[in-house]
Amino acid sequence: MKQAVMTELNKVEIVKAEIPVPLDNEVLIKLEYVGVCGSDLHYFEHGRISNFIVETPFVLGHECAGTVVKVGSEVTHLVEGDRVALEPGKTCGECEHCKSGKYNLCEDVIFFATPPVPGTFQEYVTHEASLCFKLPDNVSTKEGALIEPLAVGFHAAVQGGATVGQTAVVTGAGAIGLVSVMALKAMGVSKVYVVDVVEKRLEKAMEIGATGVINAKNENTVDKIMELTEGKGIDLSIETAGAEVTISQLLHVAKKGSTVVFVGYSAKETVNVPVNLILDKEITIKSVFRYRNIFPLAIESVAAGIVPIQKIVSDTFDFDDIQDGLTKCVNNKEDIVKAVIKM
Amino acid sequence: MKQAVMTELNKVEIVKAEIPVPLDNEVLIKLEYVGVCGSDLHYFEHGRISNFIVETPFVLGHECAGTVVKVGSEVTHLVEGDRVALEPGKTCGECEHCKSGKYNLCEDVIFFATPPVPGTFQEYVTHEASLCFKLPDNVSTKEGALIEPLAVGFHAAVQGGATVGQTAVVTGAGAIGLVSVMALKAMGVSKVYVVDVVEKRLEKAMEIGATGVINAKNENTVDKIMELTEGKGIDLSIETAGAEVTISQLLHVAKKGSTVVFVGYSAKETVNVPVNLILDKEITIKSVFRYRNIFPLAIESVAAGIVPIQKIVSDTFDFDDIQDGLTKCVNNKEDIVKAVIKM
Amino acid sequence: MKQAVMTELNKVEIVKAEIPVPLDNEVLIKLEYVGVCGSDLHYFEHGRISNFIVETPFVLGHECAGTVVKVGSEVTHLVEGDRVALEPGKTCGECEHCKSGKYNLCEDVIFFATPPVPGTFQEYVTHEASLCFKLPDNVSTKEGALIEPLAVGFHAAVQGGATVGQTAVVTGAGAIGLVSVMALKAMGVSKVYVVDVVEKRLEKAMEIGATGVINAKNENTVDKIMELTEGKGIDLSIETAGAEVTISQLLHVAKKGSTVVFVGYSAKETVNVPVNLILDKEITIKSVFRYRNIFPLAIESVAAGIVPIQKIVSDTFDFDDIQDGLTKCVNNKEDIVKAVIKM
Amino acid sequence: MKQAVMTELNKVEIVKAEIPVPLDNEVLIKLEYVGVCGSDLHYFEHGRISNFIVETPFVLGHECAGTVVKVGSEVTHLVEGDRVALEPGKTCGECEHCKSGKYNLCEDVIFFATPPVPGTFQEYVTHEASLCFKLPDNVSTKEGALIEPLAVGFHAAVQGGATVGQTAVVTGAGAIGLVSVMALKAMGVSKVYVVDVVEKRLEKAMEIGATGVINAKNENTVDKIMELTEGKGIDLSIETAGAEVTISQLLHVAKKGSTVVFVGYSAKETVNVPVNLILDKEITIKSVFRYRNIFPLAIESVAAGIVPIQKIVSDTFDFDDIQDGLTKCVNNKEDIVKAVIKM
Repeated sequence: MKQAVMTELNKVEIVKAEIPVPLDNEVLIKLEYVGVCGSDLHYFEHGRISNFIVETPFVLGHECAGTVVKVGSEVTHLVEGDRVALEPGKTCGECEHCKSGKYNLCEDVIFFATPPVPGTFQEYVTHEASLCFKLPDNVSTKEGALIEPLAVGFHAAVQGGATVGQTAVVTGAGAIGLVSVMALKAMGVSKVYVVDVVEKRLEKAMEIGATGVINAKNENTVDKIMELTEGKGIDLSIETAGAEVTISQLLHVAKKGSTVVFVGYSAKETVNVPVNLILDKEITIKSVFRYRNIFPLAIESVAAGIVPIQKIVSDTFDFDDIQDGLTKCVNNKEDIVKAVIKM
Repeated sequence: MKQAVMTELNKVEIVKAEIPVPLDNEVLIKLEYVGVCGSDLHYFEHGRISNFIVETPFVLGHECAGTVVKVGSEVTHLVEGDRVALEPGKTCGECEHCKSGKYNLCEDVIFFATPPVPGTFQEYVTHEASLCFKLPDNVSTKEGALIEPLAVGFHAAVQGGATVGQTAVVTGAGAIGLVSVMALKAMGVSKVYVVDVVEKRLEKAMEIGATGVINAKNENTVDKIMELTEGKGIDLSIETAGAEVTISQLLHVAKKGSTVVFVGYSAKETVNVPVNLILDKEITIKSVFRYRNIFPLAIESVAAGIVPIQKIVSDTFDFDDIQDGLTKCVNNKEDIVKAVIKM
Repeated sequence: MKQAVMTELNKVEIVKAEIPVPLDNEVLIKLEYVGVCGSDLHYFEHGRISNFIVETPFVLGHECAGTVVKVGSEVTHLVEGDRVALEPGKTCGECEHCKSGKYNLCEDVIFFATPPVPGTFQEYVTHEASLCFKLPDNVSTKEGALIEPLAVGFHAAVQGGATVGQTAVVTGAGAIGLVSVMALKAMGVSKVYVVDVVEKRLEKAMEIGATGVINAKNENTVDKIMELTEGKGIDLSIETAGAEVTISQLLHVAKKGSTVVFVGYSAKETVNVPVNLILDKEITIKSVFRYRNIFPLAIESVAAGIVPIQKIVSDTFDFDDIQDGLTKCVNNKEDIVKAVIKM
Repeated sequence: MKQAVMTELNKVEIVKAEIPVPLDNEVLIKLEYVGVCGSDLHYFEHGRISNFIVETPFVLGHECAGTVVKVGSEVTHLVEGDRVALEPGKTCGECEHCKSGKYNLCEDVIFFATPPVPGTFQEYVTHEASLCFKLPDNVSTKEGALIEPLAVGFHAAVQGGATVGQTAVVTGAGAIGLVSVMALKAMGVSKVYVVDVVEKRLEKAMEIGATGVINAKNENTVDKIMELTEGKGIDLSIETAGAEVTISQLLHVAKKGSTVVFVGYSAKETVNVPVNLILDKEITIKSVFRYRNIFPLAIESVAAGIVPIQKIVSDTFDFDDIQDGLTKCVNNKEDIVKAVIKM
């Protein structure tokens, strides 16, 4: 099979590799679409994220869907021909976090494309059957490959206690900001405002369902949100930009007793936070590390037509053009909202 | 002003009455629509519900909306001309339940049309300003009068922990069953099945958004639901029929660990319940007494176009025809899903 | 090693058996104490519980603790000589319930002494290391064997949302009633009343920390509880007797908005329940099937001196006298609150 | 009656004042003990906290208890002679926060000794009867005056989701840190470590039930806590010191998925916070503004002997010596853990 290996910074090469053989509790999947995540691009461009360091050759990619072509002997819920979305993290099942349902916090997780675990920019992959979620007939494998980022958006909305009738704001209109908007709308939040500094992203936000957008280059974000909410402030805030200024803005527009969800990593290890404001308003801060128990509901929401997930895709590249595709993604961060690789 | 008073069983008469004067913390509202609730009809036909006994003359009606025409001296958030929906229960604000946010459980509640408190089948009414919720421009006063029953549906969905991607079932497709369906859909529940024995109601259920319906006269409810869910069962069940058989059915189709919400009162004081089944599946039973903290979100969901509440109205009567209207409601329970009186 | 096998109704025989060999993820434990559970006695006396039918020869027993004597190659958190309490149920780790932290609802659970899975009335047993919880120095293995029933009590209290300052009632003062009392007290519940008809059990309840007891033979339970609470009723009720009358009593004494937890199985498949009362008071009913994620906190609470778990033991039998012990338990249900077998 | 009025910075004077007359829904209380809060001392020493500015003459004091000596005509649950603890904040009962049970966030609160509302360093005070909580016979009025600070501790523990078997840490061993320790222990937390730099306070912490203490002057707090927890970290952290360093320490020792509660105000408006650490561990931050719905359970926990609240008192002053008392408090912040004024 063909496999794209990162050989050095900013360089991938398509090589031949053996098709893997599924274990008894695994299936072999012929991948059809693999999304390009911000983390893939970061490893591609910088070779590391925090303490996770790429040792080349390395395979990137972890947002994927395809068709089951071989089924391990112990697998009961899948058959050849089933189309599936893959949840990328295998967890131990035995630690305190796994046992209590917070498996995303498992210390022993094995996660596609997080060094040293190879990813899925390749034609075939084996994976634990229990992490392969069957797609209904009306959900395409392209949509299937987008379930992973959508899961982050839903986890953010769930962590924030999103519920019907709320007014929310999302800072950052990158892919994660956009899936957060979709998740909030799917959970009945009636007004979702989006803040960014890139006009193209804000247009995308409107396209996928935002109630209104604020270009922070042109407007005072806090003033504008207070105006839009007639002085009431925000019930639920989701921070995906990872910036000191957006964190501060969200704490300023938050209603008393409301929740702010941190999703975006900061470029700086520490940021200045107005803590007394948190106390005055008795704000709750929740945070998001990946997601847990979200794939089934995310797939269901796409199947039910509640979430138009395919709309976040701005660019599709053929697998053979992956070098070109990743390079474009790195060079056009503002224009390429979300790219997927067609395998 | 004109006021409709119940003078004996099955009889109302329109009389003249003084327009009331608002207290300092009240507003005077010119009512435009008043819905006909099952409880109004029960008092009209039987003169009592449980220990609440009508002493004639008595004014029925409590689902209402209209326009503010006079504002008490302490009222700050409303002005003349504001259109409002009225939450009918005044509570003490001081008891354990009020203080902890469960004001619907206040022992000292004063609730329109619950004897001996008179109701709102009249042209004008005064009410605490804090219980009058301003309607946005795109919500009509007819919709405003339907916020009260919708609030019951939302309270049921909230009590049940409704969330995105779930599969739900509602037993009973009367007005409360229908608003429950609407609330579930608004909160992202992707599949809602409805069970009743009256075909016309099931048609209405499909019209307002049900995923599928089951006529329990023609089909085995439990078998059909298990078939529809491919054997998985139901994540959230809402019981509005008040029947022993529907309670039992819901406990049989409930998934392990799932929740069943009791909303409908039973004609019998006790019913036979399969309790060991509750234990085997570790089912949670929640219940609903009116609603709390729901009007704002219910109005918001109608304004946002998430809930098409006007669709539950099957019949509209002029205030002058109220005798005829209530009589028709009593005599055509199967046909009249929801009636409203135009004042 | 010696193993006690049930050979027919009311008969166990001690036989020789091979000491089992631990798998890589298992440990071999030399058992020191094994508690006698009501379910063991039920299988012993009747040969079945519901659809679980004993096929002799069968090994009973599942409440146990001992010392690790051999450690599988993959086990990292235990070493030879560690004293451990055993959580008896192995679950799949992959289903919806396991993934979401409700592993007690796993359909594929393998649970000691639930037919056809053999139990632990034997000198040695192998078990998954992740289900063996190390006991601190100040917790004996006798206490360790009582962690399993204590876990049921804690799960009931947790399901009920027990919290500081509440007034609770527990119906039934058998072993499960008593551990529920202990759990409630450990969580800060300030008053716990206990209802039973056996004076000896009520004495035991007072001994282990109940605030007061009611002998339902001599007193009207509902009246007495309302008197004790000055008419306020109960914040949290735990039902361990499995009787129609106690269920009804708890619904009558429940405060508005409060929670009743069902723990005890009923002898009848259905019981008459006053459902309208549930609605009037907006009561929540929670239920308990075994427990989940409780062993660590239960052990911790014993170690911290918060729960005097050893006090529930009324009788200790030597393993060689197990026939006599089980027979006495069956014949003296009222006197023997809790028996343990010393291996 | 005698009233202590603050006439200038660091100066109070006892003057004569009229005994107030209770409104219909109020009672008149003869005060017996009034606690000295950190905020009283701050106003006394600096004349302001944030935007709340003392205009002299001003009456300080808000932690109080006494005996009802006159009862308004509408009051039903209190009679002359009842001993009561006073919850100091009157709220509107009508806003979104009041209605939903979060009345501590009411914008229109009237709170004793928060300028311009006068406080309770006086012999008699009138107060809404619904905010006066009757003390059981075995709770003294001295303990009653300490219910207010204890309520902050309980609110912190409740906000943090304190539960049985947890390991907690409290930074800061002032009065609020100490009541937090008491609250955690009352809710079943089995190990509570306390961090401060004042040895006398740490001794007090041990006296009132801490499991262990760390003097951050002498030890590396993070290393020590990780050692004490055998590398596992902390389930629940309560921050009462308001310092950048303690916030950072708590985020470092927090277990994945755990909760940190902010209680103490910072001297700086913004502090540097390691936000990526919050994300990596999916930490929840809760915060505390006063308390809500806590007085009943706090009184109950003292009555039940679970909380030895009187132990936090280090100094008692007679009302006539209040000038001397407050001056000593200001000058001996390290030595005086908690002072109360005997009226």
